[in-house]
Amino acid sequence: MSASERPERPGAGKSVTAQFPLVAPHHLVYEDLLRTAFAEDLGRAGDLTTEAVVPVDARAEGVVASRRPGVVAGVQVAARAFRFYDPEVTVTPRAADGSRVEPGTVLLEVAGPARSVLTAERTALNLLGRLSGIAALTRAVVDEVAGTGATVVCTRKTTPGLRALEKYAVRAGGGANHRFGLDDAVLVKDNHLAIAGSVAEAVRRVRDRVGHLVKVEVEVDTLEQLDELLGLPVDAVLLDNLGPELLAEAVRRVGGRLVTEASGGITPDRALAIARSGVDLLSIGWLTHSATSLDVGLDL
Amino acid sequence: MSASERPERPGAGKSVTAQFPLVAPHHLVYEDLLRTAFAEDLGRAGDLTTEAVVPVDARAEGVVASRRPGVVAGVQVAARAFRFYDPEVTVTPRAADGSRVEPGTVLLEVAGPARSVLTAERTALNLLGRLSGIAALTRAVVDEVAGTGATVVCTRKTTPGLRALEKYAVRAGGGANHRFGLDDAVLVKDNHLAIAGSVAEAVRRVRDRVGHLVKVEVEVDTLEQLDELLGLPVDAVLLDNLGPELLAEAVRRVGGRLVTEASGGITPDRALAIARSGVDLLSIGWLTHSATSLDVGLDL
Amino acid sequence: MSASERPERPGAGKSVTAQFPLVAPHHLVYEDLLRTAFAEDLGRAGDLTTEAVVPVDARAEGVVASRRPGVVAGVQVAARAFRFYDPEVTVTPRAADGSRVEPGTVLLEVAGPARSVLTAERTALNLLGRLSGIAALTRAVVDEVAGTGATVVCTRKTTPGLRALEKYAVRAGGGANHRFGLDDAVLVKDNHLAIAGSVAEAVRRVRDRVGHLVKVEVEVDTLEQLDELLGLPVDAVLLDNLGPELLAEAVRRVGGRLVTEASGGITPDRALAIARSGVDLLSIGWLTHSATSLDVGLDL
Amino acid sequence: MSASERPERPGAGKSVTAQFPLVAPHHLVYEDLLRTAFAEDLGRAGDLTTEAVVPVDARAEGVVASRRPGVVAGVQVAARAFRFYDPEVTVTPRAADGSRVEPGTVLLEVAGPARSVLTAERTALNLLGRLSGIAALTRAVVDEVAGTGATVVCTRKTTPGLRALEKYAVRAGGGANHRFGLDDAVLVKDNHLAIAGSVAEAVRRVRDRVGHLVKVEVEVDTLEQLDELLGLPVDAVLLDNLGPELLAEAVRRVGGRLVTEASGGITPDRALAIARSGVDLLSIGWLTHSATSLDVGLDL
Amino acid sequence: MSASERPERPGAGKSVTAQFPLVAPHHLVYEDLLRTAFAEDLGRAGDLTTEAVVPVDARAEGVVASRRPGVVAGVQVAARAFRFYDPEVTVTPRAADGSRVEPGTVLLEVAGPARSVLTAERTALNLLGRLSGIAALTRAVVDEVAGTGATVVCTRKTTPGLRALEKYAVRAGGGANHRFGLDDAVLVKDNHLAIAGSVAEAVRRVRDRVGHLVKVEVEVDTLEQLDELLGLPVDAVLLDNLGPELLAEAVRRVGGRLVTEASGGITPDRALAIARSGVDLLSIGWLTHSATSLDVGLDL
Amino acid sequence: MSASERPERPGAGKSVTAQFPLVAPHHLVYEDLLRTAFAEDLGRAGDLTTEAVVPVDARAEGVVASRRPGVVAGVQVAARAFRFYDPEVTVTPRAADGSRVEPGTVLLEVAGPARSVLTAERTALNLLGRLSGIAALTRAVVDEVAGTGATVVCTRKTTPGLRALEKYAVRAGGGANHRFGLDDAVLVKDNHLAIAGSVAEAVRRVRDRVGHLVKVEVEVDTLEQLDELLGLPVDAVLLDNLGPELLAEAVRRVGGRLVTEASGGITPDRALAIARSGVDLLSIGWLTHSATSLDVGLDL
Repeated sequence: MSASERPERPGAGKSVTAQFPLVAPHHLVYEDLLRTAFAEDLGRAGDLTTEAVVPVDARAEGVVASRRPGVVAGVQVAARAFRFYDPEVTVTPRAADGSRVEPGTVLLEVAGPARSVLTAERTALNLLGRLSGIAALTRAVVDEVAGTGATVVCTRKTTPGLRALEKYAVRAGGGANHRFGLDDAVLVKDNHLAIAGSVAEAVRRVRDRVGHLVKVEVEVDTLEQLDELLGLPVDAVLLDNLGPELLAEAVRRVGGRLVTEASGGITPDRALAIARSGVDLLSIGWLTHSATSLDVGLDL
Repeated sequence: MSASERPERPGAGKSVTAQFPLVAPHHLVYEDLLRTAFAEDLGRAGDLTTEAVVPVDARAEGVVASRRPGVVAGVQVAARAFRFYDPEVTVTPRAADGSRVEPGTVLLEVAGPARSVLTAERTALNLLGRLSGIAALTRAVVDEVAGTGATVVCTRKTTPGLRALEKYAVRAGGGANHRFGLDDAVLVKDNHLAIAGSVAEAVRRVRDRVGHLVKVEVEVDTLEQLDELLGLPVDAVLLDNLGPELLAEAVRRVGGRLVTEASGGITPDRALAIARSGVDLLSIGWLTHSATSLDVGLDL
Repeated sequence: MSASERPERPGAGKSVTAQFPLVAPHHLVYEDLLRTAFAEDLGRAGDLTTEAVVPVDARAEGVVASRRPGVVAGVQVAARAFRFYDPEVTVTPRAADGSRVEPGTVLLEVAGPARSVLTAERTALNLLGRLSGIAALTRAVVDEVAGTGATVVCTRKTTPGLRALEKYAVRAGGGANHRFGLDDAVLVKDNHLAIAGSVAEAVRRVRDRVGHLVKVEVEVDTLEQLDELLGLPVDAVLLDNLGPELLAEAVRRVGGRLVTEASGGITPDRALAIARSGVDLLSIGWLTHSATSLDVGLDL
Repeated sequence: MSASERPERPGAGKSVTAQFPLVAPHHLVYEDLLRTAFAEDLGRAGDLTTEAVVPVDARAEGVVASRRPGVVAGVQVAARAFRFYDPEVTVTPRAADGSRVEPGTVLLEVAGPARSVLTAERTALNLLGRLSGIAALTRAVVDEVAGTGATVVCTRKTTPGLRALEKYAVRAGGGANHRFGLDDAVLVKDNHLAIAGSVAEAVRRVRDRVGHLVKVEVEVDTLEQLDELLGLPVDAVLLDNLGPELLAEAVRRVGGRLVTEASGGITPDRALAIARSGVDLLSIGWLTHSATSLDVGLDL
Repeated sequence: MSASERPERPGAGKSVTAQFPLVAPHHLVYEDLLRTAFAEDLGRAGDLTTEAVVPVDARAEGVVASRRPGVVAGVQVAARAFRFYDPEVTVTPRAADGSRVEPGTVLLEVAGPARSVLTAERTALNLLGRLSGIAALTRAVVDEVAGTGATVVCTRKTTPGLRALEKYAVRAGGGANHRFGLDDAVLVKDNHLAIAGSVAEAVRRVRDRVGHLVKVEVEVDTLEQLDELLGLPVDAVLLDNLGPELLAEAVRRVGGRLVTEASGGITPDRALAIARSGVDLLSIGWLTHSATSLDVGLDL
Repeated sequence: MSASERPERPGAGKSVTAQFPLVAPHHLVYEDLLRTAFAEDLGRAGDLTTEAVVPVDARAEGVVASRRPGVVAGVQVAARAFRFYDPEVTVTPRAADGSRVEPGTVLLEVAGPARSVLTAERTALNLLGRLSGIAALTRAVVDEVAGTGATVVCTRKTTPGLRALEKYAVRAGGGANHRFGLDDAVLVKDNHLAIAGSVAEAVRRVRDRVGHLVKVEVEVDTLEQLDELLGLPVDAVLLDNLGPELLAEAVRRVGGRLVTEASGGITPDRALAIARSGVDLLSIGWLTHSATSLDVGLDL
């Protein structure tokens, strides 16, 4: 399976049309997070400053804008955060998730009771900034490997409580998602292999257990292990910590029979070399565990 | 792919060895259910009868036994229910999940403060009875189709709040699991096809979106739709409401390229005929939505 | 107290007028169940299929209809499930809880965003199907014993988390409810009697403890125990596992001084014989623990 | 039914033996309250003072003692509060709930990590103080009416979130409990009667609906309403805002056929006069809504 | 610092203008309390009485009025309680929190479905009554010490789960708030001092640890300890159990360098004498732990 | 107040002795986070791979080690994560929070059931990695400004749900904490000032409202605003986006009367210059919003 032959390769999200704009997860998926976030910020007494300084009937209008260049993600999430705190706040998205932004780009317009706008600001911006940071980091790698046919995917190294949103931010940046958790696909890793004793035995045990709608991926870190894997009933192979040359050889041996995924120490400066090995996917933990927030602010 | 060639066909769980006994889901998966169940039964004031009649220092020993023939599932779950209510209760499992039971078969031994044993009894038994009922129903169908190579799978028609446990009970009965929810695999159904306009367009949209560790199944209800599906990048086909002859023809056309799954009105008396069509899986909603509880009781 | 003399016997719900239609419990009673059910089905990522295939602005209209003959219960609950997921979905009930349905009977009309309708469908139907199954089973027994004056009641053998709704479904089927939990009435059972040493001692302990708004029922399984009970300050007697003849004798001895309730192995074919013994109530666990769901479907 | 004839009158709890010590509700009933209380006090950062001043390995021993005369309730609850915060704290109850205490009476001994003892102190004492205050207030009225045969009961005017514990404190003080909530008994009040149009119609509606294990009480505020009620199938009558003479006449008319309960403005100085009317119960909201906490302290 | 020189002394809230009416905490702060309170009252089955007696389409209009003289607090909270139960209920506040009320003073107007009004009544009134009781008690002390310049503050001796609302009620009564919990300020108490060995060492440890936005108060119970404290970097001193003369001397020694707060046994009849000592604050636990509810009722 | 005169300046935590090791927040503060994190990772079905491959009675021993140089934080939190999942896992901390680590430094030893160790690994490491990343970033800035006397503090730009732990990680890195939320101190910002009309009016409103244990800080962005602030009753001033020269002038004008805090665009290369202005605190959002996780791994 060469890169040019992969029109339906999963996850890249490249041909999404206007009819299918990027839509953040349904709020039921992250509602607990909003509740937690506001509880954490309001504490027992709420916003002491705002309630002391701002009259109860004051109105405010403003925009949330980017202070830096980047890629935005989480506009709908931020909008919902404002409205979760106070349904009387109206929020109008002004930028689509996944789009590039410059300093000054308006992301949302906000209007409503001044107290609510000021109190909800930080929670909404914390989410928007973090998700945008992930999207921008993803976008940078996706652009770096453009033309190689490789898809950039994230891992389970996400912030506790934010997995669904961080996975979404990766998609907003042009990447795709690996497993969402321990129960939606099988990934046999080195520690599992050591306990099972062999690749074949590990796969046999998995096949005895898991259902027909569960994909199975196995991590290998040598070509010998890869050879042992080929012919076994799995869907994908995680090639861990192999250099570009070994990866290219691995891709050749797989010959399109499995999805091939490179992982381990794929830093930005190494991404292109690794992608050129012909692997289908680059698995990169730092898309989520090491993203830095986009600087966004509210201007009344 | 004939039945005799399917040593690694997913999900049947037939060759599970002693080293891999059936283990119920980790309690963190169903702890909220126990909390809810006890809250519901204890109400605001707890067990009025037991607290009035049973001295606080009375001890009780007893066994939970089956009153009817069947298959047991949920022994560990029932044990945990007793101990969730009171860690001073000791529970010793006496039957393995998945095993057949007769009237009088002892499932667990229970000992501890008499108040705790009596108060926790109903919650523990309600779970044990329901899961065992599902296991028995599954086992009956699995036995009915034995020799055909078909795997029996359940659906999402489970009791709200009990999905993980009911899916487990199906496995205890020798069956396998279909999707656990809307997010761990794609199943394109008739309503989706109608909106997309064609099978090909629906599959194209899915491939644009979902990751490489997500399996894709499409429901078809005619051979024409099946022909349209073959050649598209999907993993499985759900053949809905086709009779045995059409199923056999469908299996022939698929020729082992996809996992084939029959669904729709598979009643016990029709299961064998459908399984003989050569399909890989029988998808049966009533394993969970229409199971009747095993009658189990506590004898002090 | 003969059957013809019992105009005010509790629970039968026979003369409910149009002014008092059957109303499901207030949503605050079962809101946690909806939250749990949707969380379970949506998982971390939501409805992959629908979000991939259905445009965000597509609308859908459809009906939820029965596929089988039966009795419906839970129409309001299903309506609320759709609207809990998305308040923009409008739902119009088309059948009253407790009414008989035939294949094709429309139960609800649903309209709104196509994504929301499709995603919420299974959760709404799982609840509707299960509650209707209980209502139908109850109705069948209620009809079987019609004319005897006996009321059919359920037990605490309900599905964890669904007690309030399942108890409601029994009422929708023409039955009445026994205790909702361990704290709203006293039921002294065989194990309690064994610990107390005698019926009289058990009742004495209960009377020492419980308040004036708590009813007290005692289970007996012999006429000797019944004789011991008569004269003690209790409200009802549970006659466990006595045959029709012994039950008739028990009813004679009680002479209307207590509510009489038969329990234990009351299968459908034995219900009428038992009801003819003159007991006030038939207590039947399988109304809830062994009901099978009504097959209901959504047609767009 | 005269006072001397009421050996089994519900609720008074006078003859509770050593074998049945007062036991607080099972912790599952109030565990959420402990979680809420500690979350509220610890906030986001925990006990700043203690963590700054007390070495992590310091131990503390001390006693919780009363500062005032009173009646104690909640010793087990306070013990559990300490241990909920830190299971390494050991707590030894030194006073039985319901017992009288003097200044200096030791209620619990506490030992363990000094940080945990100091941090958990306030939450444990707040609960203990409040419950003891209710017990003392109840005991005072119970003693006031001693010899009349009247039982003192509380109402639903409890602190939100503490109902089970406050009802327990009333029992610890020698009182009994009225309804725990809206669903464990029927109480038809003046507003209900006004809507139903008559006492008879209200009772008819109730009897159409509620099950055989639900007691029914009706509030009347005139002898005419009482006459209307007599003969209807109810269990108790709430005589609201009648003076001692009218109450005595009401008790005479009831003639032991119903439990009689006086309510409305029963202040301490009026309790004895009202009890002497011969009513079975005095219903007193201020047992819970106007109790003042017992002053308890921790001495290391 | 004399009383006349303290225009900016914190917390008294005396000059709050119309533009800054007393506003209860944002509902997110106490939403869990409403959920808990209704769950507790509705139980598993909801309001049996109202659902039996009141037609589903009946409407009700009424007023919540005070039955006694007092000070009101919690009007917005009560309004939200009604609407939390049923958003179709409309509630119009008729009295401002903090205002004095007489028997008959209307606090809120309520209109909507009769069932909802009757069912939500008790939960709304329990909150309103309790908060008003605290406000009235606070107001009485505030008035008692008027003219002395002393501010009346509450403590952490609040009802578990209600701290934010009870602190608000104190403000409504003209008082101010001490710490909301263990994490928003440091209060070094006697037990801490005993462990640290000296006031100086305790303060040193605190200063090593806490941030610049955390105030530090130290409790002393002798003038010697006070002398040791002066000169150390703290913000306030809690003068515990000193009589008026010693307090006056303490205030003199402090000389305005610290906020001075008296605590310990400040009963109503002693409050004025203590306030005249010149202390800035009177800390009074019984504002919250020993308030008695205002009698409020709903008249349809 | 010059740097050399600030022995008791709050928050720096420099002289913490062995008796006061850094202790992570009490687990009750972050227990919900662990529950959420495991629920998110386990999903409905738990760890498919481990349950298929690893025998139920297999044991594992291993170490969690750093893969990179850095500073560790969260060792106790990670230990608790393992034990939250399975109390049979034993964890021995091998590094103190706040200590520097090199590649290979062992942080914890872990032993127990192999399934539990493998399943809990990711959740434990995600927390440990993130907190360590924050500690390292903080440490780098703290070291950069060493000798200037300036304290490094974080902001409310934390990850939703992790505030308490992230604030702790800043302390582990040698920094101090600003507000934990909107309710533990007042910070009047530009938008508040705009609404109030002037610094003096804003402060007046705040003083009218907040209690004596709440510190008050005001943000100014010109020296004119600063002059307006001096003399008003506040505790600290936030000097926003002033360069080193203006900051030095501001510090001079304040003259030790207020805590001075610089904020706005304090990048690592500018931190030293800003610290040398003499400000007491540097407020740096990217300590938390832009930290990158420390790479930590589990080796069996």
